[in-house]
Amino acid sequence: MADLVTFGEIMLRLSPEYGYRLFQNDTLKTCFGGSEANVAVFCAQTGITSKYVTKLPDDPLGSAAKAELNKYGVDTSDILTGGERLGTYYYEKGAGHRPAVCVYDRKHSSFSQSKTEEYDWENIFKGAKAFHFSGITPVLSAELADVCFDACKTAKKLGLTVFFDLNHRTKLCGREEMKKIAQRFLPYIDVFISSVYQANDVFELGVNTEEAEKACISLSKEMMKKYGLKTVSLTVRKTFSADKNGFYGMICDGGNAYFSKKYETDIIDRVGSGDAYDGAMIRSYLLGHDPKTSVELAAAAAALKHSVQGDFSRVTAEELEAFAAGGDGRVQR
Amino acid sequence: MADLVTFGEIMLRLSPEYGYRLFQNDTLKTCFGGSEANVAVFCAQTGITSKYVTKLPDDPLGSAAKAELNKYGVDTSDILTGGERLGTYYYEKGAGHRPAVCVYDRKHSSFSQSKTEEYDWENIFKGAKAFHFSGITPVLSAELADVCFDACKTAKKLGLTVFFDLNHRTKLCGREEMKKIAQRFLPYIDVFISSVYQANDVFELGVNTEEAEKACISLSKEMMKKYGLKTVSLTVRKTFSADKNGFYGMICDGGNAYFSKKYETDIIDRVGSGDAYDGAMIRSYLLGHDPKTSVELAAAAAALKHSVQGDFSRVTAEELEAFAAGGDGRVQR
Amino acid sequence: MADLVTFGEIMLRLSPEYGYRLFQNDTLKTCFGGSEANVAVFCAQTGITSKYVTKLPDDPLGSAAKAELNKYGVDTSDILTGGERLGTYYYEKGAGHRPAVCVYDRKHSSFSQSKTEEYDWENIFKGAKAFHFSGITPVLSAELADVCFDACKTAKKLGLTVFFDLNHRTKLCGREEMKKIAQRFLPYIDVFISSVYQANDVFELGVNTEEAEKACISLSKEMMKKYGLKTVSLTVRKTFSADKNGFYGMICDGGNAYFSKKYETDIIDRVGSGDAYDGAMIRSYLLGHDPKTSVELAAAAAALKHSVQGDFSRVTAEELEAFAAGGDGRVQR
Amino acid sequence: MADLVTFGEIMLRLSPEYGYRLFQNDTLKTCFGGSEANVAVFCAQTGITSKYVTKLPDDPLGSAAKAELNKYGVDTSDILTGGERLGTYYYEKGAGHRPAVCVYDRKHSSFSQSKTEEYDWENIFKGAKAFHFSGITPVLSAELADVCFDACKTAKKLGLTVFFDLNHRTKLCGREEMKKIAQRFLPYIDVFISSVYQANDVFELGVNTEEAEKACISLSKEMMKKYGLKTVSLTVRKTFSADKNGFYGMICDGGNAYFSKKYETDIIDRVGSGDAYDGAMIRSYLLGHDPKTSVELAAAAAALKHSVQGDFSRVTAEELEAFAAGGDGRVQR
Amino acid sequence: MADLVTFGEIMLRLSPEYGYRLFQNDTLKTCFGGSEANVAVFCAQTGITSKYVTKLPDDPLGSAAKAELNKYGVDTSDILTGGERLGTYYYEKGAGHRPAVCVYDRKHSSFSQSKTEEYDWENIFKGAKAFHFSGITPVLSAELADVCFDACKTAKKLGLTVFFDLNHRTKLCGREEMKKIAQRFLPYIDVFISSVYQANDVFELGVNTEEAEKACISLSKEMMKKYGLKTVSLTVRKTFSADKNGFYGMICDGGNAYFSKKYETDIIDRVGSGDAYDGAMIRSYLLGHDPKTSVELAAAAAALKHSVQGDFSRVTAEELEAFAAGGDGRVQR
Amino acid sequence: MADLVTFGEIMLRLSPEYGYRLFQNDTLKTCFGGSEANVAVFCAQTGITSKYVTKLPDDPLGSAAKAELNKYGVDTSDILTGGERLGTYYYEKGAGHRPAVCVYDRKHSSFSQSKTEEYDWENIFKGAKAFHFSGITPVLSAELADVCFDACKTAKKLGLTVFFDLNHRTKLCGREEMKKIAQRFLPYIDVFISSVYQANDVFELGVNTEEAEKACISLSKEMMKKYGLKTVSLTVRKTFSADKNGFYGMICDGGNAYFSKKYETDIIDRVGSGDAYDGAMIRSYLLGHDPKTSVELAAAAAALKHSVQGDFSRVTAEELEAFAAGGDGRVQR
Repeated sequence: MADLVTFGEIMLRLSPEYGYRLFQNDTLKTCFGGSEANVAVFCAQTGITSKYVTKLPDDPLGSAAKAELNKYGVDTSDILTGGERLGTYYYEKGAGHRPAVCVYDRKHSSFSQSKTEEYDWENIFKGAKAFHFSGITPVLSAELADVCFDACKTAKKLGLTVFFDLNHRTKLCGREEMKKIAQRFLPYIDVFISSVYQANDVFELGVNTEEAEKACISLSKEMMKKYGLKTVSLTVRKTFSADKNGFYGMICDGGNAYFSKKYETDIIDRVGSGDAYDGAMIRSYLLGHDPKTSVELAAAAAALKHSVQGDFSRVTAEELEAFAAGGDGRVQR
Repeated sequence: MADLVTFGEIMLRLSPEYGYRLFQNDTLKTCFGGSEANVAVFCAQTGITSKYVTKLPDDPLGSAAKAELNKYGVDTSDILTGGERLGTYYYEKGAGHRPAVCVYDRKHSSFSQSKTEEYDWENIFKGAKAFHFSGITPVLSAELADVCFDACKTAKKLGLTVFFDLNHRTKLCGREEMKKIAQRFLPYIDVFISSVYQANDVFELGVNTEEAEKACISLSKEMMKKYGLKTVSLTVRKTFSADKNGFYGMICDGGNAYFSKKYETDIIDRVGSGDAYDGAMIRSYLLGHDPKTSVELAAAAAALKHSVQGDFSRVTAEELEAFAAGGDGRVQR
Repeated sequence: MADLVTFGEIMLRLSPEYGYRLFQNDTLKTCFGGSEANVAVFCAQTGITSKYVTKLPDDPLGSAAKAELNKYGVDTSDILTGGERLGTYYYEKGAGHRPAVCVYDRKHSSFSQSKTEEYDWENIFKGAKAFHFSGITPVLSAELADVCFDACKTAKKLGLTVFFDLNHRTKLCGREEMKKIAQRFLPYIDVFISSVYQANDVFELGVNTEEAEKACISLSKEMMKKYGLKTVSLTVRKTFSADKNGFYGMICDGGNAYFSKKYETDIIDRVGSGDAYDGAMIRSYLLGHDPKTSVELAAAAAALKHSVQGDFSRVTAEELEAFAAGGDGRVQR
Repeated sequence: MADLVTFGEIMLRLSPEYGYRLFQNDTLKTCFGGSEANVAVFCAQTGITSKYVTKLPDDPLGSAAKAELNKYGVDTSDILTGGERLGTYYYEKGAGHRPAVCVYDRKHSSFSQSKTEEYDWENIFKGAKAFHFSGITPVLSAELADVCFDACKTAKKLGLTVFFDLNHRTKLCGREEMKKIAQRFLPYIDVFISSVYQANDVFELGVNTEEAEKACISLSKEMMKKYGLKTVSLTVRKTFSADKNGFYGMICDGGNAYFSKKYETDIIDRVGSGDAYDGAMIRSYLLGHDPKTSVELAAAAAALKHSVQGDFSRVTAEELEAFAAGGDGRVQR
Repeated sequence: MADLVTFGEIMLRLSPEYGYRLFQNDTLKTCFGGSEANVAVFCAQTGITSKYVTKLPDDPLGSAAKAELNKYGVDTSDILTGGERLGTYYYEKGAGHRPAVCVYDRKHSSFSQSKTEEYDWENIFKGAKAFHFSGITPVLSAELADVCFDACKTAKKLGLTVFFDLNHRTKLCGREEMKKIAQRFLPYIDVFISSVYQANDVFELGVNTEEAEKACISLSKEMMKKYGLKTVSLTVRKTFSADKNGFYGMICDGGNAYFSKKYETDIIDRVGSGDAYDGAMIRSYLLGHDPKTSVELAAAAAALKHSVQGDFSRVTAEELEAFAAGGDGRVQR
Repeated sequence: MADLVTFGEIMLRLSPEYGYRLFQNDTLKTCFGGSEANVAVFCAQTGITSKYVTKLPDDPLGSAAKAELNKYGVDTSDILTGGERLGTYYYEKGAGHRPAVCVYDRKHSSFSQSKTEEYDWENIFKGAKAFHFSGITPVLSAELADVCFDACKTAKKLGLTVFFDLNHRTKLCGREEMKKIAQRFLPYIDVFISSVYQANDVFELGVNTEEAEKACISLSKEMMKKYGLKTVSLTVRKTFSADKNGFYGMICDGGNAYFSKKYETDIIDRVGSGDAYDGAMIRSYLLGHDPKTSVELAAAAAALKHSVQGDFSRVTAEELEAFAAGGDGRVQR
């Protein structure tokens, strides 16, 4: 039994070394990842029992994805097996002025073709307290949108808290479709998480985002009013270069907005930093942290993730807390 | 203008280091390859102008496949661009008693979904003398079988010599389907190449293959009689272990059968060794070699290919000829 | 609840690339392993629920060892945490005429300093059917010998079948001490496994081992008579070079001796091959195989392990069975 | 037939990994490059047909250099073969306060010993519109200076536009010799490109370069007046550290000077950034861009090159234009 | 005969690649290092004859440590052999906001268990002019404190100048113990070197270190007054992130304090930068530099060390002097 | 003072990974080596004080070559510095049927251009007992032949024993020139070493080498008779493939011929195996071994060298003696 259940697609990621273009030489480094898997790993690594639900092919790629989740302590006992292939993507890290390149090869994946009747949510959720999925999952297929809907309904019925990250991927679906799909789930969402820019864009809220802090507040209020959300958490990322980002978060809980410290982060690997943010939010919820502590830990988790290779955040609870409390990159010896 | 045109699918191959299982660690080595591409590269590297025809996606994988062909001197000017994805496969080399593992992820590829009307064979074949394709190409889709059929007809019309390697891949189609598909092309084939075991199996000839040399002869005669073939070339591979193979070839041209030396080869990478055999056969044909020379060079090319990483044979004409003439692995310094 | 429990020390292994001497360049490849851990991984990978018991330090080395066991599906819930350090060893693979070099740096390890009262065997063994440990464990400290003794007594009380591999490591203790220690456990052992040469040497049986098959039989009978053992399984390894070994096994069960095929194996990594033998023996026992099948699968498992990097056998049940049934290193594609 | 012809020396470059000193460990990464080859590759990768002329030894180094040019789409059909060796250089990247180390081992190269009569410029230039070489080429030998002179004369006769980059390498020749050599070519140059500092230094113009922008303008006018040049393009590089440079360019065409944006660039590999500038200048000329567009694209090309390993700019026309239009290193997914 | 003798522990360091957590993948990079060994290497590489004294195990690790010292020109003829093991440590570099992780596995090392009577200081010091050790050495064991004391006494007797770097490692001993141990040596120390923060902390001087420059001066005076020291050199390090440090030094010699330039350094590897500072101080002393030159070269040496992988500073005298004189990371070619 | 002095050229060797062709990917592994340097390293590693004399350029390549010799304990104090470049060579290991490729780029090296007057043999030889050089050295330039001649004369004057290995490299000079050069030195040679085939070929002795053992004897006697040699040692290498050689040696001392065991060796790296033979011969001479022991150790040294990457034999005296005494590649643990 796990406190947290997350649901989505885990993919094989293939990347050239930093500074190299894709296929410039003959070596690719592999890792596995996907938003909801990253959230599950983050939580499992920081002391939360976490279960990840997906569908994997019955081949060495599927087995390896599962083994990697096991390695980081995630409960994989409800993962389905079968279907055609594992989604993959080629990810060339950006450097300096050169942006990252992401080539998706995820169509026809086992997960994207999985069916409503394959998921027994009552059983999956047994004993769980929180459910997390992101906007990537329901856009993968019409059927998966239905699966997410089933999951949401069951989660609410069983009293789980539902966390949803908008995670709009323009390569997967357009803005309008994303809005339509997301609106279907909003009534079931307890904690809505998004980049402030994406939320504004997808829900066509027309907030002026030049002053990002103000925008966070007005956008949260707008989302709460319009969609009856109780808790909204927004993130602000500034891209200084492919090697340096600014990052902070806000949580608006009831009437009050709490902002985290503003981080300026050197980037080893920014993939999964938003997921670390989600994971830390959920962890704080399960540990009963107050909103200010939650957003500080979440932003710290995101900032720290930028320093680790791969999609997964391999950071312990101690490291997270030491950093949030003001660590500074000094060697301890 | 190229003397040789080959037609088929080139794929991205992803392999762990020798001795490692797939995803045992986080590094994969990449190369590009596919039977007909390998034939084109072999010929281009040994002095034959060679053109390769396929369809590649308009993304970094497609560009890299094309660049790799350019690197080895293959004419890529008639390669089509578009479609969904590049076929990929994961290839874990065998070692000792552990057999190689090949996981295809090639469905829905740009090539497999390409259409008859995209290929202008009259133009493609302008100035060419030989055409090569293998049994892999027409089994990828019903449409591709038609494309091959068009190509064969045009090749014959324009006076090209047609080389066909049976190359039966049991993961792509069953024996009976392979037979049906291959029979459609046999009337257009000038030189039929196959493993003796596969030919026997696919065409249900019922030859006793325990004594492989005898089998080569009777099977060739059977194929000639039954299908009106003029030239049949068969290969015999013995798998001693994942690291050591026996290999030799035979060409039956008119009434006479000529056998090559019998090689016992240590294996660095056996993928593409059959294609090197085909390439050397075609090269000998274009250079006007006699059957005995042809089969000796072809078997030498295949044996030598086992010693090179990747699908492509990176062997020069000088190296091939020195080896066929009796080289022994001594350092020249 | 796991069917199998194994108990011993898992270490960090550090190895230069094949062909390089230790510290010849600045790269070491790491893996984790130890006889009983290898047995647990083998069984978990081939479908047997397996629990591994040890003590690991509370540092990144201990965490990584545990994560690696999790990755391969081993139950790590009863692993103790604490103590000073993880045992490590430097292992330079042999090549050609150059033998492997093994530099132990395992003294003062958390496991070797663990105490009797830390292990609650009644709980650990709940629901288990088999227990495995090797002669390495009780020689690490006098206290550990007592722990093993407790484990054996509890195992017998709870009806588990006890498997013991002699595994005499001359760098850890002398022959006479090994004999003394092993004799203490023999009354509790159901299945005694050893190299024929080591058993002869340690128990001073004076069997002529020049004709290895005969020696297996007479030595088994001697062991049975002298120590009241019911099942003895012996292995015969011939070292042709650092790159090639001969290997086969025998099981003597009641009055009859069954020999496996004799394998000649190219070596990628021979560490853990004896443990794969043990694992397959246990697996066969749990699956109810007859002695002949058991020894054939065990020898096949050992032969196959030689082809995989690292201490762990990363071989599936399907691969093991296909190989034992006569696979030959051919590519399947 | 190619629109652009470039002429110079391509060398093998051997580099330790970033952060390592030369020969600190036993691995060197290789690439091929040289100013004019880099220009040809830049142009070929961004849609300009480009031919590169040089002389390469008939050995695996020469073949590899040619193959690499083929890979990136450069026409290598007029490359000469023969001579003693390929020029090589060892390049240790700088890091932080540690400057890069460049050890030339290029003497006695096939190219540096090539002769006037080996180059048939009438034929080489057939159909071409632009010719590019840099100050490196004529300083390699007195004979090569004559070859360049022949090339210039033929280029002018056939109506090609001649681009010349001063590229003064102090390890190859002194300032005075450079001036003397360069002056011989100036009457044939249509577009003169140089670092503002080098031009000032070599031609002893005595311009105060503390205010770099002003210096660009006065130096251009001085060069135009003194040497009758029509177009001068100057670059300004600021070295903040081995990992960060500032860069911008100016083009002075007729009476007007146009400056590009000023870039501050993190450095993956700064070798070839000036060549990317040249390549983009030529590309813009061939595409008919106005001076402002030309200098913006050229500076963007140079800034972007800093982010790619190796001498070659592996950047597409789309990437260049997106960046010049204001891209920011964000991931597209 | 060497001008400098240093004494301490050299360890094997094992590190994952930059950006990876320990054991995230299966590769560790090795180097050898330790404060006093680093000082000896720095001096040997910049023209000072240097001898290093320690005790190493008689195994491949000990041999490799010695060979590495030989490689960099250090006299190893007085190194003792024997004992149980080489001290090792696992060092995960920090990145961005993630601090470095240092896991010591150095207990029970040959050096830490070496005895007073094994060291013949009269002989070791023959012909030497300077002796260096750091606070790490005497805290490794009570016996080693005695050995250091013997060494100090002999050094003074023979007229050597004694350099001592406080180098307080909190993982090895507490502040109070460090003070007690250090005080025993102060009467023998000619040049006392320390981080300003550590000195203040260990000797409980209660200086306000917010204004670091002022603190350097008052702390030096305090140390001189309290402990009769003649020369004190203090360093100030600011940790901006795991990738960027500020660094400068001060030397207080007699009544005057001299400060170096203030460096802001990108970090490839900061381990050993303090040791490079010490080495350059000693080198300047042996070359007769004045205090201002000494502190400038020492700070430059420390800044430059940050740019080199591994504990050792692989920088030549020419490189050091060029940098101290104002080099800027420009390529020389 | 060293017992052994060797004299020759050390080069940088650049090799792709095993199984790859040169420049197939972008990684080369480096090592340093050369016949006489390899002999010096062999001897230093097995307990003989050894000095190596050569001339190295004053650049990072020269420094690295020297550092590598220091690392392995060779006395480098008489190495000259200066000149143009370090000789380099590209070495692609053979595999299976594919022979090794050796591309020399050693012309114009500092050593090959060094002058008679630069070498002060009286001083160099002070205290030495043996001198070794091979036929490679005097063929590098006419001047170097004179240097060798000077060295031989001085060696004889000072009573050193002179070892000469014919080492005919056909890429450096023809057979007739080799004969002429070698004959000049024979009067000064105490121990003449050669491949039986090369000696027969170069000195045109016309011995039938089909039966290699007989040939060794008659060829030795012929050489002794014709050239007044006292001790001749010949080696016999059989090339089974690029991965497997046969090897044995013979020493003919006075009237008697002693043969070593016949080894069949798997090949990791065969470069330097002949040099290990020479080194072991010299070592045995200095240790006073009898001829039979000498040839056994020499052949064992050569066989063992095949198992180690790089030119240098990194084998200890203990390992050599254990192997010669019958070791078998078994792990010791």
